[in-house]
Amino acid sequence: MASPKEILKQVQDDDMPHWRLPAHPANRRSMRFFSDNAAAVHPRVMQAIQAADRLDTAYDGDRLSRSLDGRLSALFGTEVAALWVPSGTAANCLALAALCPPHGGIVCHRDAHIQNDEGGAPEFYTHGAKLFLAEGEGAKLTPAAIEAVLDAIPDDVHRVQPHAISITNATEYGRVYTPAEVAAIGDLARGRGLGFHMDGARFANAVATLGCTPAAVTWQAGVDALSFGFVKNGAMSAECLVFFDPDLAAVTRYRRKRAGLLLSKGRYLAAQVLAMLDDDLWLDTARAANARAATLAAAGGDRLIHPVEANEVFLRATPDEAAALRAKGFDFYDWAPGEIRLVTAWDSDEGDVGALADAIAAL
Amino acid sequence: MASPKEILKQVQDDDMPHWRLPAHPANRRSMRFFSDNAAAVHPRVMQAIQAADRLDTAYDGDRLSRSLDGRLSALFGTEVAALWVPSGTAANCLALAALCPPHGGIVCHRDAHIQNDEGGAPEFYTHGAKLFLAEGEGAKLTPAAIEAVLDAIPDDVHRVQPHAISITNATEYGRVYTPAEVAAIGDLARGRGLGFHMDGARFANAVATLGCTPAAVTWQAGVDALSFGFVKNGAMSAECLVFFDPDLAAVTRYRRKRAGLLLSKGRYLAAQVLAMLDDDLWLDTARAANARAATLAAAGGDRLIHPVEANEVFLRATPDEAAALRAKGFDFYDWAPGEIRLVTAWDSDEGDVGALADAIAAL
Amino acid sequence: MASPKEILKQVQDDDMPHWRLPAHPANRRSMRFFSDNAAAVHPRVMQAIQAADRLDTAYDGDRLSRSLDGRLSALFGTEVAALWVPSGTAANCLALAALCPPHGGIVCHRDAHIQNDEGGAPEFYTHGAKLFLAEGEGAKLTPAAIEAVLDAIPDDVHRVQPHAISITNATEYGRVYTPAEVAAIGDLARGRGLGFHMDGARFANAVATLGCTPAAVTWQAGVDALSFGFVKNGAMSAECLVFFDPDLAAVTRYRRKRAGLLLSKGRYLAAQVLAMLDDDLWLDTARAANARAATLAAAGGDRLIHPVEANEVFLRATPDEAAALRAKGFDFYDWAPGEIRLVTAWDSDEGDVGALADAIAAL
Amino acid sequence: MASPKEILKQVQDDDMPHWRLPAHPANRRSMRFFSDNAAAVHPRVMQAIQAADRLDTAYDGDRLSRSLDGRLSALFGTEVAALWVPSGTAANCLALAALCPPHGGIVCHRDAHIQNDEGGAPEFYTHGAKLFLAEGEGAKLTPAAIEAVLDAIPDDVHRVQPHAISITNATEYGRVYTPAEVAAIGDLARGRGLGFHMDGARFANAVATLGCTPAAVTWQAGVDALSFGFVKNGAMSAECLVFFDPDLAAVTRYRRKRAGLLLSKGRYLAAQVLAMLDDDLWLDTARAANARAATLAAAGGDRLIHPVEANEVFLRATPDEAAALRAKGFDFYDWAPGEIRLVTAWDSDEGDVGALADAIAAL
Repeated sequence: MASPKEILKQVQDDDMPHWRLPAHPANRRSMRFFSDNAAAVHPRVMQAIQAADRLDTAYDGDRLSRSLDGRLSALFGTEVAALWVPSGTAANCLALAALCPPHGGIVCHRDAHIQNDEGGAPEFYTHGAKLFLAEGEGAKLTPAAIEAVLDAIPDDVHRVQPHAISITNATEYGRVYTPAEVAAIGDLARGRGLGFHMDGARFANAVATLGCTPAAVTWQAGVDALSFGFVKNGAMSAECLVFFDPDLAAVTRYRRKRAGLLLSKGRYLAAQVLAMLDDDLWLDTARAANARAATLAAAGGDRLIHPVEANEVFLRATPDEAAALRAKGFDFYDWAPGEIRLVTAWDSDEGDVGALADAIAAL
Repeated sequence: MASPKEILKQVQDDDMPHWRLPAHPANRRSMRFFSDNAAAVHPRVMQAIQAADRLDTAYDGDRLSRSLDGRLSALFGTEVAALWVPSGTAANCLALAALCPPHGGIVCHRDAHIQNDEGGAPEFYTHGAKLFLAEGEGAKLTPAAIEAVLDAIPDDVHRVQPHAISITNATEYGRVYTPAEVAAIGDLARGRGLGFHMDGARFANAVATLGCTPAAVTWQAGVDALSFGFVKNGAMSAECLVFFDPDLAAVTRYRRKRAGLLLSKGRYLAAQVLAMLDDDLWLDTARAANARAATLAAAGGDRLIHPVEANEVFLRATPDEAAALRAKGFDFYDWAPGEIRLVTAWDSDEGDVGALADAIAAL
Repeated sequence: MASPKEILKQVQDDDMPHWRLPAHPANRRSMRFFSDNAAAVHPRVMQAIQAADRLDTAYDGDRLSRSLDGRLSALFGTEVAALWVPSGTAANCLALAALCPPHGGIVCHRDAHIQNDEGGAPEFYTHGAKLFLAEGEGAKLTPAAIEAVLDAIPDDVHRVQPHAISITNATEYGRVYTPAEVAAIGDLARGRGLGFHMDGARFANAVATLGCTPAAVTWQAGVDALSFGFVKNGAMSAECLVFFDPDLAAVTRYRRKRAGLLLSKGRYLAAQVLAMLDDDLWLDTARAANARAATLAAAGGDRLIHPVEANEVFLRATPDEAAALRAKGFDFYDWAPGEIRLVTAWDSDEGDVGALADAIAAL
Repeated sequence: MASPKEILKQVQDDDMPHWRLPAHPANRRSMRFFSDNAAAVHPRVMQAIQAADRLDTAYDGDRLSRSLDGRLSALFGTEVAALWVPSGTAANCLALAALCPPHGGIVCHRDAHIQNDEGGAPEFYTHGAKLFLAEGEGAKLTPAAIEAVLDAIPDDVHRVQPHAISITNATEYGRVYTPAEVAAIGDLARGRGLGFHMDGARFANAVATLGCTPAAVTWQAGVDALSFGFVKNGAMSAECLVFFDPDLAAVTRYRRKRAGLLLSKGRYLAAQVLAMLDDDLWLDTARAANARAATLAAAGGDRLIHPVEANEVFLRATPDEAAALRAKGFDFYDWAPGEIRLVTAWDSDEGDVGALADAIAAL
């Protein structure tokens, strides 16, 4: 199989139809640390997409899609039901709808992606369930923080009642929950009769850091449903919704269709997930992204706002300092006044990561 | 650029990882006439997907996505707003939600895809709007058939009031609406203050047959929103929702996100649409599918249930006759007792189409 | 403050405040056969409302509301959960929402009130469930008619799947289901794993005709939830939603509140239901209405479109004949071309019923 | 069957039926300060209900219902559309649904009734709109507090966008917004293109305190829709939803039916609203409740947590002190640790109010 470099070269060399835009600085992937959600598709995933071209049954009746349950069950060491979906928002919200009725509520962190970045999709998919916002350092929840929310809700029909808990691992600030931390929340969920969802948009980055099994930080810790993210980690358009209680998946198969998410050529999505799992590509790409973030973290020193445990680096930087970095061609997100966010991806160029690290150290 | 044969050969020659399943009869595309919704991705589309790999902004901020409004406006000869979505169901239902409030209703054919084949997605996206079912030969609606439905609904709060009309072109039975037929319904819609949606899952097949401009059979005939289908016609996972009233698109951009349909690597979807439009590939592939259907239609003779105007052929066939065709390796859908459906696609092998035609003639 | 007695007397004696409109022909209840849904409130119900004035707990925590479960359980001879609601539409739709998920469907008659006369409330309360329309003489469903609908729905995610059956007893055409007829549908529902709802807006009229126990035609025949109507039969603003599976009621108590239906002074609604049940007032008023309809039916003779089994009379009448009846001061509903509907209520004046009967006979 | 007259007489003569419960301490209204939402119905309202008994058209077609627009327009000195609804939750949520689309959001106070006490009804009626929570002393919002929320929401499809503001007057803590304070928020709403709703469950108490016209604190201050509360103030089951933009009412008439809120005997609800408006009964009863609260406030002294501007009194009281008050037969709500809430109503017995005032002073 051709290496990324070879494939890239080939793409850049051949004729340039109108939709092949000329390269220019802003278009050089090497200098962008804006986010991992626009990174390139890994060559092995692209190859799998091509290989899926052979005709097969539509929707999720093809052999690639039908192999997902087995592949994910093997990965997690227990029987799971696995559904491909084209976006992380879709994965999260189908999971929440399976765990919470329209008249219920879901406890999540005040800074959770489902609360702030999905345009109200949780309310759409659940038909109006309410999100209860809990506090926590680095967007991490603790049983105490969750109980503080739960205990303030009297059990009567006038108050929306909690039905589920949702956490993000790695969190929106690149913090990682350990199996023990997840299990503590899982115990609380079980004790209170609540469903437990994990938004794993960067699950791979978390597992790569933890060095644990995927099982240890999910079902063995009480998680009912996992949004297993691949798009930020090398895939093109396929995430995987994993239910550790296969019964939860049954109704979701109807909801996935009803939401217009059951693509007719599903084999091209299944192929992406399978390629990411082959030979643990998902862990290789996550380790690559994490290592690059670690390089930036080392340079960040006292500027670090959060410990760097995945592929996101939050730094204190004045507007002048941010401007200075941009002047050198680095692109990133202004997170808050005096704060910038740097995100690395599986394909971040190591030379450019080093250059950014030097530029940060030189501030 | 490599030819389809070359690309296919290359794919078949290199090593076969586990997700590259061995070919076997049921897997030979050449003998399948089950549906066009699982056809292969056209090599030029696949090439465009690879070429989109270069990093760009996420969601629909990339230059490919941003070029859609212009490209589709040029195609339709008027200013339109064009949104990529990953499925035809999503395109249809976002359009319906833009044209009908939750407490309203939509007139469609009794056999419409939105009524029978989308798992309740219209009700989900519209928050419970009602579908009013009208009658019509070959799944085609006429102003008279629509008025029969409308006139039976008293204008009071006890009855769901109609707010939109939805037709499918080409229809679920492969029939085509002419510009004049669409305009007649468009006039009715305007006169009654109703929105007008066209499900164009096979719009290309219809335009290829009509030989008219895309404009003539849509906005010039009063259509407000078109679900422009590409997946059945050579794309992988991108349909295009076209609003002829750009204002309708504004709210839909929020709804698309809220539905989990705003993929983060949108450039890979935009690239598919753009590749299909380049050099009218969409018409070439539709013509190819239609021509193959015409070959089967000629063989069908008196067995034809509907005139063949696109890429679907409905034949009368006894169970024994259907079995005889299957015995020769042909795969297709049993539509109803004594009826079979044969669907051709852009990549149907002409040799096999000829063989099927002979087999039909020999029945 | 004046005592109820004094107030009653005063009301009867004093001058007419502005909201006490002068009587005029159109306002004489005796000549109106338009519908039973605007009839007067029975004096014993009005008395019960006044008697409920004494302060008690809000919502449904008062002793009248808390007594409903017991009173209805006694009436039905089994443990039931009974919730007051202010309208029949609310009762029907809360029941449907308890029996059918948002992605499911409900089989009902093409002319059912939930399909035609509730402004889309079933779709609102169920979050978009679909109504499947079945055929049947006099708006009555049979197992065969229901199976014809069910058997046409393939069991896959592309089709909305049926989850419940809803029938109306007495039907929209004043026909009555016998216990055996209901049980046959109940057996079908159980066999197919479907919920079973009965719209009992005129349940009293049906039971009065059948002379059976309320149990025989509901839970003993497989009904899961009954909308027990009182408003058309002498109450002011209270219907009773009866669940024969108390578990179904638990979630409904949350949904009732969420729908804005949990009135803070619930005791005034509970009082109405209790007064209607006292000494079988509900059966007395229903018998009165049915008897008046029987008088009209006898006069109708060959004009009868449906057998008269409750308090609705459908007659064939030309526009001229209808005009002749109106010229004599009778008010009624033009049901369809050449058809009129006459509805009697508990308070229809017998003299006027006789006059109408004479007028019909004289046509 | 006995005639209405005979039945009335019989009812007045016979023994107390079971639903006339014997009085006992917990049932003595004079000692209850728990809430105003279970107070008795004012005799003039009860009288109006009886007087509405005369037959008229169903739903809101009767002359009482049809007179609401005119009566409320006269009261507010501008053309309004007024719809009766059976609960304050229904009024609030129909208003919010008219001002905010399903994908939008509504800014309200963290302690607003719509956020905490309506069981998720706003999310149900709006189909999943999000409530944005703002801070403010005494549950009062200021333009600055609202802008703090608005300015934190970037204008992109990933974030739910604000579409409306909702305030409560008098607030959940018995604080009153002056016309100037409302107008300041109204200016903000207009400037930002947001709808503006006022929850007036205790609107009468606020106007009674302000001594202003109802117009001054609503439409003249930019309010688009008012939930005009009557149930806490002497009515039985009728609130009035007032739209200052009649166009907003048009769609709401369909939504009211769709929500099962269009009672068939609407004249009994309209009669309550009209009786409350006759001779400003609504202001008389509100003044009575406010005066009783003032008596308690005077006794509260330093214990007062909020200025008493309506009919709610929040006091600091230790568990022992609360127990001491209860030991004397006073009933009230424990609001928070160390805080109790006392609510007076139009029918609170002055002697008992005095006794409670003495008991508080004696703590």
